[in-house]
Amino acid sequence: MPERGDPIRLLGAPTSAVGARSRLVQPARWPIGAVTGGSLTPLQDLTGTITPSDLHFEVHHAGVPLIDPARHTLLVHGRVKRPLTFSLDDVKRFPQVTRTHFLECGGNGEMAWRGNVFGFPRPDLTPQKVAGLVSNVEWTGVPLRVLFEEAGAKRGATWFLAEGGDACLMARSIPMEKAWDDALLVWAQNGEPLRPEQGYPMRLLLPGWEGNMSVKWLRRLELGTRPWMTRWETSTYTDPLADGTARQFSFVMDAKSLITSPSHPMTITRGWWPVTGLAWTGRGKIRRVEVSTDDGATWSDATLQAPVLDKAHVRFTHPWNWDGAETTLMSRATDETGYVQPTRAELVRARGMGTLYHWNPVYGWKVKANGRVFFHGST
Amino acid sequence: MPERGDPIRLLGAPTSAVGARSRLVQPARWPIGAVTGGSLTPLQDLTGTITPSDLHFEVHHAGVPLIDPARHTLLVHGRVKRPLTFSLDDVKRFPQVTRTHFLECGGNGEMAWRGNVFGFPRPDLTPQKVAGLVSNVEWTGVPLRVLFEEAGAKRGATWFLAEGGDACLMARSIPMEKAWDDALLVWAQNGEPLRPEQGYPMRLLLPGWEGNMSVKWLRRLELGTRPWMTRWETSTYTDPLADGTARQFSFVMDAKSLITSPSHPMTITRGWWPVTGLAWTGRGKIRRVEVSTDDGATWSDATLQAPVLDKAHVRFTHPWNWDGAETTLMSRATDETGYVQPTRAELVRARGMGTLYHWNPVYGWKVKANGRVFFHGST
Repeated sequence: MPERGDPIRLLGAPTSAVGARSRLVQPARWPIGAVTGGSLTPLQDLTGTITPSDLHFEVHHAGVPLIDPARHTLLVHGRVKRPLTFSLDDVKRFPQVTRTHFLECGGNGEMAWRGNVFGFPRPDLTPQKVAGLVSNVEWTGVPLRVLFEEAGAKRGATWFLAEGGDACLMARSIPMEKAWDDALLVWAQNGEPLRPEQGYPMRLLLPGWEGNMSVKWLRRLELGTRPWMTRWETSTYTDPLADGTARQFSFVMDAKSLITSPSHPMTITRGWWPVTGLAWTGRGKIRRVEVSTDDGATWSDATLQAPVLDKAHVRFTHPWNWDGAETTLMSRATDETGYVQPTRAELVRARGMGTLYHWNPVYGWKVKANGRVFFHGST
Repeated sequence: MPERGDPIRLLGAPTSAVGARSRLVQPARWPIGAVTGGSLTPLQDLTGTITPSDLHFEVHHAGVPLIDPARHTLLVHGRVKRPLTFSLDDVKRFPQVTRTHFLECGGNGEMAWRGNVFGFPRPDLTPQKVAGLVSNVEWTGVPLRVLFEEAGAKRGATWFLAEGGDACLMARSIPMEKAWDDALLVWAQNGEPLRPEQGYPMRLLLPGWEGNMSVKWLRRLELGTRPWMTRWETSTYTDPLADGTARQFSFVMDAKSLITSPSHPMTITRGWWPVTGLAWTGRGKIRRVEVSTDDGATWSDATLQAPVLDKAHVRFTHPWNWDGAETTLMSRATDETGYVQPTRAELVRARGMGTLYHWNPVYGWKVKANGRVFFHGST
């Protein structure tokens, strides 16, 4: 930076109302598609567990609507005693809770999976491209059960429909048990109002469940007695199986882990490196992450950063002294239910080659003798 | 938003590499001074506990330097066996830890305090102006003790000097006990590299201690046997007392709490409101926050959002049904050492009227019968 010179001899920049990143640091999401599409979180550029809100992955089917909260309401109706509408201001007057949870698209991992299926391994995939449709932020909102109690949910209501206020009218059917358990209506992430692509002014949040069900720009909740079978749960977000049937519904995101460093496109030198990455499960807490630095021959327990939160990213770290020999790095998560992140072969046995969504195989990173690191696919 | 119309009939905005806030939501820091100055976090616009990195408060004495990590090193020398220099890349190869901690300027609360001292109550103060020189983020870095062990700290080293790489060469003396305890050298906040005004590429972090000691743009650590008595610990950051002496050193930030909503400039209506705010202590964990909605006559325990972390913001909430009568809302924090946030009168008795820094009196918000809310000062 010759135009700046020695920082101890120069007056720096003044204060600002909103800070900006150093121009030497420009992490970016990776857009796939445009209006109907998404963008993936740059996992390899991040550390810790929080995803900055402007780097939170996005997926939408009719673009990101600009919604004025002064004109937006949420209708709660159907099998309730008192149909009600709530504005953002109304919702903020209920008791609020703050919780950190991951959110993951059901289709996270598609590029890595298809590379294996079609026989085109993609050694150039980065953590962002392997599994960047997942993020982890602090959410603030109201327990959904509070709104359902306010409206007087009827005893017979066993399912509810959540409908978004964008032009695709995303709509999903959700068992009432999730509302009585931990579902939230949220209006804030990482301390600030939701970002537009995350549902501003309000969205549903179903901790641990596939992302599309956490309906954004939420405008309607209808209580009923069976699933609505919307186009979003028939033509998509359903998992074909090898025998020609499909499994439905597959709400929960199973345990997954991914090493984010070392990873492609890094080049490393001999000596000590922290092997670090993220693990998460929709079934509660991560109990254990094992790391292999010898292509799966042996596994060691990685250190999990405290606190290990429910349905949230946990950062794992394992020190590794690279001797310069070619090898493969892998990680494997186990959650508190005892579920272990499967191999790709196990996934194929259970669901066939054409399975869509919910890919969580063990991933590997090949370290070449010259220090270059490549995606090794799922093993 | 007439130019946009009904969002369900319009295609929304495309995906983006870096997200932006809704143009209807523009939280901003409040700058005081320019090059030598700071800017305060808009606490009233935030919820939960995380401070977005671009709204983290800043204080600097020679502007914000632009530092290229390729040209920046950290020297560790003095009473060590092996003087060492570390680049950012070097530092990242050590075992890393991630922890959420608040950071607070020793001078936080100045406008509220001086208003009382000089007899100009400032009912127009917002939470940002009352106590916005505090923020709370997730930090990632290396325990400082790891670097000191690497350099071979000598047994007789009891203090160390931390020096920043900006044009004011901020330098503070720190007891070695803090390094052996929980001091960190950090390079990331909220998942991403440090922002420039937070010390990019690396800073010291002394959890729970006054902010200026967590030296930014850190370039030098010198181990020695006594405090250096730099200008930063003699001409400033020292607390005058009523008897003409000064207390030195006052490292730890004591327990504090502040209601962030309802607060000025809100106008409220009768009925239920969540009284919510933040509490924190440099001495460990917050054990309890009490809220009074009747001008201090009675106090109730507020709910603390889990997890309650060490030396970190905790969000408290207390439901309140406003009957329309004029009243004052107050909060009072107690930490795990049993220390209770004092009244202003107690602070004056202990330190006199002219005390500088470390103001943590109980604050009040006056609710007028017309629903308008004003800062009531410290009581």
